[in-house]
Amino acid sequence: MTRDEFETFAHRLADAAAAATLPHFRSALAVENKIGGDDGSAEAFDPVTVADRAAEQAIRELIFETYPDHGLHGEEFGIVPGASVYEWVIDPIDGTRSFVSGVPLWTTIIGLRRNGVPLYGLVDQPYVGDRFWGGEGSAFTRCRDGAPRQIRTRACASLAEATMMTTAPAAISGPGERARYETVERQVRLARYGADGYAYCLLAAGQIDLVIESGLQAYDVVGLIPVIEAAGGVFTSWSGDDAHYGGTVVAAGDPRVHAAALEALNA
Amino acid sequence: MTRDEFETFAHRLADAAAAATLPHFRSALAVENKIGGDDGSAEAFDPVTVADRAAEQAIRELIFETYPDHGLHGEEFGIVPGASVYEWVIDPIDGTRSFVSGVPLWTTIIGLRRNGVPLYGLVDQPYVGDRFWGGEGSAFTRCRDGAPRQIRTRACASLAEATMMTTAPAAISGPGERARYETVERQVRLARYGADGYAYCLLAAGQIDLVIESGLQAYDVVGLIPVIEAAGGVFTSWSGDDAHYGGTVVAAGDPRVHAAALEALNA
Repeated sequence: MTRDEFETFAHRLADAAAAATLPHFRSALAVENKIGGDDGSAEAFDPVTVADRAAEQAIRELIFETYPDHGLHGEEFGIVPGASVYEWVIDPIDGTRSFVSGVPLWTTIIGLRRNGVPLYGLVDQPYVGDRFWGGEGSAFTRCRDGAPRQIRTRACASLAEATMMTTAPAAISGPGERARYETVERQVRLARYGADGYAYCLLAAGQIDLVIESGLQAYDVVGLIPVIEAAGGVFTSWSGDDAHYGGTVVAAGDPRVHAAALEALNA
Repeated sequence: MTRDEFETFAHRLADAAAAATLPHFRSALAVENKIGGDDGSAEAFDPVTVADRAAEQAIRELIFETYPDHGLHGEEFGIVPGASVYEWVIDPIDGTRSFVSGVPLWTTIIGLRRNGVPLYGLVDQPYVGDRFWGGEGSAFTRCRDGAPRQIRTRACASLAEATMMTTAPAAISGPGERARYETVERQVRLARYGADGYAYCLLAAGQIDLVIESGLQAYDVVGLIPVIEAAGGVFTSWSGDDAHYGGTVVAAGDPRVHAAALEALNA
């Protein structure tokens, strides 16, 4: 699949997802609890909406119709293996907590991997109209009907000059992880919370310098990695390995900040 | 001044501010440090941009030209007393940390008070196209060219069912305040960070239930109070007094949540 072919099709997928999600954004929503027993704690509150499922369904139908031999891994409906080397990895609404709170920072993340390796990605925030996509050496953004603009990560020499984002420190909850994360947070110029996948787009667009998270799934990252790498950034696990299947993630726009973050995380 | 007159003029002010801010959003910015010595810590990092000043300047010119006897209190250029009972209270870019990070949750807040009491307010996020305004019993929103829709806060019986926002727990830094705040955060269903004045608009629009902050200035709140009250919400200090000049703030969409938050803050 060429990048042109991906782009044309991924924009269609994002448009179809937006048609499914937007009517539900900022409307009254019946929120279910995906994890199960609702004990009222923030940790257990992982809302899944009608919109989430409708968007994934719309994307699945288009993929199966257009590329019947491709595989598909969606957040909502799981994995459908394909005969092809290509697999689509989809998060119909990344940032469901933003979605149910009316915050326009949730995104639809569409990734394509080949033989397991992330190849192209597209991230869409349809209420704002922001879309980011890329792979194979170039990445782009557009706002609503604006012309696509190429994006690059920005230079940043050190943690002391870096703006960092993470979805929530409380979400960095693996054994020993929080203390390691905080070692980095203490050193950065500005730390901000709450942006989920949107934060990685801001990194690719040269607006921020660092994102550190943990506990991610493949569908959280496959669509992000090609955009960040094509924009000049670095995306690995906390141990510096590839993070193609999620887990811990450190993404940086400048390799110097990436190296400094890895060093602090593993000090 | 009637509400119609306010609305007509406040939309003009917001349009003028947007023309000054948007060209700088997500562009390379020279960020100054308002507080002074840049020691690199997050606390001292209070960026002021060219956009901030240009927006306030545009608003000031329109106000002085149209209502030369009105007073004006702006975040950037301070207080200009007027002969009239009316005073405009302006924050050209509320959420400058969002602005410099490329996050489209900063807002322009325009408030009008009469004899010191907040009367009307308008809050604008021009990149998204979201605008919220109200006073004297009714509040509205519109998205870009969409028709205005009346907004109301939503019902919420208790903290256990509430979605809460605050800009950042680290910003709640007065003596003893953090522990009091955390008493509330532990009881809510979902706590989210990072939205500044935009969070209050989501509250007025029935998307979230509670906002708790401290250390606010008059220009942070005067434009918000009329919108929230007109939408059915309650806006006071942590001691339950009016918060017309900023300080500590607890805003709730449902009086039951407001009462529960006050009780927890003062337990």
